[in-house]
Amino acid sequence: MPDIARRFAENPILRPADVAPSRDGLNIECLLNPGVFRYDGRIGLLLRVAERPMQEEDWVSTPILDPHQPSGIAILKIRKDDPDLFYPDPRLFQYQGKTYLTTLSHLRLAWSDDGVRFQVEDKPTLLGLGELESFGIEDARVTEMDGTYYLTYSAVSPSGVGVGLISTRDWRTFERHGMVIPPSNKDCALFPQKIDGEYAALHRPSGVMIGGNFIWVSRSPDLHHWGKHRCIAWTRPGMWDSVRVGAGAEPILTSHGWLEIYHGANADSRYCLGALLLDRDDPAKVLARSLEPIMEPTAPYEETGFFGKVVFTNGHLVDGDTVTIYYGASDEVICGAKFSIQEILASLGKQWA
Amino acid sequence: MPDIARRFAENPILRPADVAPSRDGLNIECLLNPGVFRYDGRIGLLLRVAERPMQEEDWVSTPILDPHQPSGIAILKIRKDDPDLFYPDPRLFQYQGKTYLTTLSHLRLAWSDDGVRFQVEDKPTLLGLGELESFGIEDARVTEMDGTYYLTYSAVSPSGVGVGLISTRDWRTFERHGMVIPPSNKDCALFPQKIDGEYAALHRPSGVMIGGNFIWVSRSPDLHHWGKHRCIAWTRPGMWDSVRVGAGAEPILTSHGWLEIYHGANADSRYCLGALLLDRDDPAKVLARSLEPIMEPTAPYEETGFFGKVVFTNGHLVDGDTVTIYYGASDEVICGAKFSIQEILASLGKQWA
Repeated sequence: MPDIARRFAENPILRPADVAPSRDGLNIECLLNPGVFRYDGRIGLLLRVAERPMQEEDWVSTPILDPHQPSGIAILKIRKDDPDLFYPDPRLFQYQGKTYLTTLSHLRLAWSDDGVRFQVEDKPTLLGLGELESFGIEDARVTEMDGTYYLTYSAVSPSGVGVGLISTRDWRTFERHGMVIPPSNKDCALFPQKIDGEYAALHRPSGVMIGGNFIWVSRSPDLHHWGKHRCIAWTRPGMWDSVRVGAGAEPILTSHGWLEIYHGANADSRYCLGALLLDRDDPAKVLARSLEPIMEPTAPYEETGFFGKVVFTNGHLVDGDTVTIYYGASDEVICGAKFSIQEILASLGKQWA
Repeated sequence: MPDIARRFAENPILRPADVAPSRDGLNIECLLNPGVFRYDGRIGLLLRVAERPMQEEDWVSTPILDPHQPSGIAILKIRKDDPDLFYPDPRLFQYQGKTYLTTLSHLRLAWSDDGVRFQVEDKPTLLGLGELESFGIEDARVTEMDGTYYLTYSAVSPSGVGVGLISTRDWRTFERHGMVIPPSNKDCALFPQKIDGEYAALHRPSGVMIGGNFIWVSRSPDLHHWGKHRCIAWTRPGMWDSVRVGAGAEPILTSHGWLEIYHGANADSRYCLGALLLDRDDPAKVLARSLEPIMEPTAPYEETGFFGKVVFTNGHLVDGDTVTIYYGASDEVICGAKFSIQEILASLGKQWA
C-alpha cells in the first residue's frame, strides 16, 4: 500500500523562524506536533515550541524551568568533553547519570482562517508549571466536548514523563488538572464522546524490561481518574512499527467504528503513520490495523531536520470524508496533509471499503 | 542507625518445601512477599508462590499461563547455548528479544493462630487470569476497609507489569476489578481510610530514560480509577536506596502522620527497608525519611538464596506500638520481624520521638 497522504503544496507551513522566542537568550530550535481545533470560526493550532540557548561550539546548554530563578529558568551548561556527559541523541543527553532534554518546550497558539496560513501568537500560551513539568510540556492533543476543550499533553520532569490535563472554554483562561496518568506515559488521545457511560482514552505506557511501547485504552468517570486499562496494539517485529507505537489525535467515528491514525517507529527511529479501526462500543477490540504505513517520511522536510525521518501527528480536522492532519516533520517544522477516510478504511482491507 | 528489626527466632517460618506445587510437573522455587491480614480470629498470609518445571542441566524452562492449553499452561523450554538466549538475572531471561520470567507466580493463603506457625492451603487461591496476567500475579498488598479486603498486586504479562485489584469479604469468593494502574507499575499500597473524601494509594511507576523507580501518591473516588498523581520519594545517589524505592504495606496512622515502611535497593540489587513519614492530611508531603535502613539483609537466610541480599516486605500487622512485618528473604523464604513504631519514628529524628 503506498503513502496515501496528500501533502500541502505549501509545506512546511510553519518554521522556527516564523515564531518569536519566549525570552531573550533563547532560540527556537523546533516546532513540533500541534494539537488542532476549531474555535470561534477559526482553525487553531497549539504548537509545541522547543527552545534552548544559542549553542556555543564546545558546550551543550539547556534551559530548565526553575521558579527560584528571577527569570523562571536555569541554564544547565556542560563542556562537550566532560567525561560525565553522554550525548546519544539530538533530543536528550545524560550528565552525571541524570537525563536531560536538549530543549525546553512550551505550547503556543497559532490561528488561521484557511488552514494553511497561520499567525503565531507572540508569547507562550502555556508553560510548564510545578515540579512535574520542569522539563516542559509537549505534544498536546485537543478534544472538544460540550464547548470545553480538553488538552492532554506530556508533562516532563526528572520524575518522569506522564500525562497532564488542562481545560479551557475560551483559549484565554485555562484550568490545570494536574497529572492524570503516571509515568512513563505519553500520546494520550481522548475519545470525543462517552462510551457506555464513561470517558475513554488511548495512551502509551512504556515497559521496563517487561512490556514495551504499546497503545492502551482506558476509562474514566470524570477525565481526572483513569482505570480499566487494556492493551490493544503491540509493536510488530520486523515491521515499520517494530519498536514503538502511539496514538495520534482523537479517534474519528466512522460507520465501521473508531478510526485512529497512529504513529509507529522502528529501530532506526523512523516514524511513519498507520491506522487502527476499533469497535464502536468496545474500543479495546481492534477490528483492523495497517500492514503498511499510510504515510512515510519521504519529502525533503520529512527526511532531514532536527531529528530526521519523522512524520508525527497528534492533531487533525475532519470535514466529511476528508481528514486534514497537521504534523511535525523531522521534529523541526509544521506541515499539513489530507487523507480520504474512505481510502484509509479501504487500505485496511476490502471489508472496510 | 543500626538495624532495629527484631527477627523471629523461628525464621524462616515458611520455605518452598512446606508448600505443595499447584500441579504435577512444577516445583516451587520460591515463596515471596506475602500480603497480611486478620480474618475470623486468625492471621492470614497471602503468599506469592513461584513455580517452574524441574530444571534440566542444559536447558532453561518456564511456565506461561495459556488458556488454549488443556492444562492451562504452556512450557517454554530453551537450550542454554541458544544464541538467542540472554540470561542476566535469576529472575528473568530474554529470548529472541522478548523478556520472560524464570518462574510463574500465583497467590496462596496460609493461616495461623499465633502468627508464627502457618498452615498453607493445598491449592492456589488466585491464579493469573486473562492476557494481562499470563506471566502471573505477584506481591499482593491487603487492605481491609468496612469488612472488604482489597488486594493490590502486580499483574505481569508480555504487555508489561501493572497494578491489578481484587476484592473479597470472605476469602473464598473474589471479585476481579482488572488493571487499575497501567505499566510499568508495582508496589501499590492502599491507605486504610479515605483522606479528604478520596481513597489514596502509594505506587511505584518506572521511568524510561527520564524518571526512575520512585514512590508516588495518587487519589481515587472508587479504587478503580486513579489520578492526581504526585511523586513523593526519589532514589538517592550514593545511598542504600540509590536505584529503586517502593512502598511496603498500607501506611500506619501515627500521632505524627502516616508511617510507611518502604524498600530501597542499590546498584547491587541489595534490598533494605526504611521509613517515610507523611502528612496526615496531605500524604504528598514527606515529613521525614530514613537516612539509614531500619532493616538490612544480614541474617544467613537474607544473604543467600534464590536472589540473595534481599529483605522485602509488603504485609504487616499492627498491635499498639508493635508492627509485625512478614517479609520475603532472598526471594526464597518467608520470615517475620517486629519493630517498635516509636523506635522507627525516633530513628527519623528527635522531633518524632
